[in-house]
Amino acid sequence: MSSDASSVTYSDIQAAAARLDDVVHRTPVMTSSTVNDRVGAEVFFKCENFQKTGAFKLRGGYNAIAQLSPAAKERGVLTYSSGNHAQAIALAGRLHGVDATIVMPENAPQVKLDATRGYGAEIIPYDPETTTREALGQNIAEDRGLTLIPPYDHPHVVAGQGTVGDELFDEVGDLDALLVCCGGGGLLSGCAIAARQHAPNCTVVGVEPDAGDDATRSFQSGTLQTVENPDTVADGARTPYLGDVTFPLVLEHVDDMVTVSDATLVQAMHVLWERMKIVVEPTGALGTAALLQGAVSFPGQRIGVVISGGNVDLGRANTLFEEHGLI
Amino acid sequence: MSSDASSVTYSDIQAAAARLDDVVHRTPVMTSSTVNDRVGAEVFFKCENFQKTGAFKLRGGYNAIAQLSPAAKERGVLTYSSGNHAQAIALAGRLHGVDATIVMPENAPQVKLDATRGYGAEIIPYDPETTTREALGQNIAEDRGLTLIPPYDHPHVVAGQGTVGDELFDEVGDLDALLVCCGGGGLLSGCAIAARQHAPNCTVVGVEPDAGDDATRSFQSGTLQTVENPDTVADGARTPYLGDVTFPLVLEHVDDMVTVSDATLVQAMHVLWERMKIVVEPTGALGTAALLQGAVSFPGQRIGVVISGGNVDLGRANTLFEEHGLI
Repeated sequence: MSSDASSVTYSDIQAAAARLDDVVHRTPVMTSSTVNDRVGAEVFFKCENFQKTGAFKLRGGYNAIAQLSPAAKERGVLTYSSGNHAQAIALAGRLHGVDATIVMPENAPQVKLDATRGYGAEIIPYDPETTTREALGQNIAEDRGLTLIPPYDHPHVVAGQGTVGDELFDEVGDLDALLVCCGGGGLLSGCAIAARQHAPNCTVVGVEPDAGDDATRSFQSGTLQTVENPDTVADGARTPYLGDVTFPLVLEHVDDMVTVSDATLVQAMHVLWERMKIVVEPTGALGTAALLQGAVSFPGQRIGVVISGGNVDLGRANTLFEEHGLI
Repeated sequence: MSSDASSVTYSDIQAAAARLDDVVHRTPVMTSSTVNDRVGAEVFFKCENFQKTGAFKLRGGYNAIAQLSPAAKERGVLTYSSGNHAQAIALAGRLHGVDATIVMPENAPQVKLDATRGYGAEIIPYDPETTTREALGQNIAEDRGLTLIPPYDHPHVVAGQGTVGDELFDEVGDLDALLVCCGGGGLLSGCAIAARQHAPNCTVVGVEPDAGDDATRSFQSGTLQTVENPDTVADGARTPYLGDVTFPLVLEHVDDMVTVSDATLVQAMHVLWERMKIVVEPTGALGTAALLQGAVSFPGQRIGVVISGGNVDLGRANTLFEEHGLI
């Protein structure tokens, strides 16, 4: 741990990497001459869509549960999520032999409810029309003595997500730029800390959807900005604001923030599916979209792009491709 | 080269691997606990859908052109294909600085015509209603002094495809079984030769679609069987018969042949897309389908599966998933 309990340093990421060794997939780094030709640079895609549970979230969840006291492990953990963090905590709990309770909206897709239950977690459904998940989660956690593992705003979660960047630099060496999608900023800040260590001159850029641009405005103004339920296909980037832990880390370690349109995002997904043969969810295509849209440009340079996940309903993806005239 | 010019030995595969070093992607080997749980074995997927041009075919094409005389290279090469071999020869030609001419049906999908032309090949379209591609190809090759590079029935092509199996064993070590899709038998026989070298006790199984079962019947009877324009979604396995080079190699090195239904094939594609996040074309899912269908069973054992390619129109794949009630 770093001296400031709410901060994260590279040694925290190294410690997380040691805990995650043999637990997570060391996901492949892929390249595409089609993409390289199109953007005029050499691009390295770190493919966390191939991670267990289909997204990077297992890293942070596992790293956080690993550091609980034996007594806290005995009591169990809780989180609220309708997305990738739910499955991550469910699987991380099972791997640690720790009971996991997940507060999920009762109208969550059946496939996500099934997957989370399949990892052995207890699901507590709630009606999102009448209940806020935070209040319900807090109440249940206090009643049952469970430890809350938040989806991004926790130093152990950030350190775990930083292992994504650590592995990327380990594999490809120096990079001139690194593009990371940004929801709550856990993956972005963790990867930025790793970049500082491996490649001090690497330009680290966070990417958000146009409609969910709170982190970009927060970064530019230096004051926390929020967004309410933004209308974007990037469901993993609909988070309302950066956290107490992640906002200072983003300010300190990230060089720039940009946003991309939903249309570009779906086009980027299509390129990744059709040309690179990888199934990527909308949020996972944010970095690729920034390159293809020209929101960033690093001609002739070496660029890392983090693909965060691949959990998208295949029919839903097809609808998006159709709506954007791509198939 | 082996002593019999029409045969292929492991040393030919080693020589091909040396030629292909730094030319082809060393494609990743992927695993899935979902698949492992479902089939009760440990499965290693060699992902040639991530190969340049989206399929393994570049290996054989490049290896064949590499061994032409300087004079033959100067004159150029020709092939006929509407599928993955066309793009492979186009790119292999460009990489060698050798002019490539591809005879393609005039009604081939625009995306394939564009991709092939994009690699710098000359396309000669023909009307498949009135012309056979073999006759047209032979005539043009003779007129222009071009060397024909057939899609599978050539020892240098087989040796190149064998590097797929070679890389798989290099990466994962011993295997109890290896499942390889079979069209004309180039990939299957090449991988079987590699398996003999790396894992003499490995059971090598070729997999065909039910409707295109010519190689299975040829294998079982010991006499070459044919099939005419079979009705299967696995377009890469619609080849009418094994070749003069590949049939003896299959008889000598392959342990068994099985077939799978188109319905199973589409289900296997869906598992690969949805759970493993990889875009695989129907033919590429043959080995996976054999496992999921129970056409083969190796409980508790280590099984290699070759994914041959990922070139499928996304809209077409969606239609297949819909037709089979999967989305």
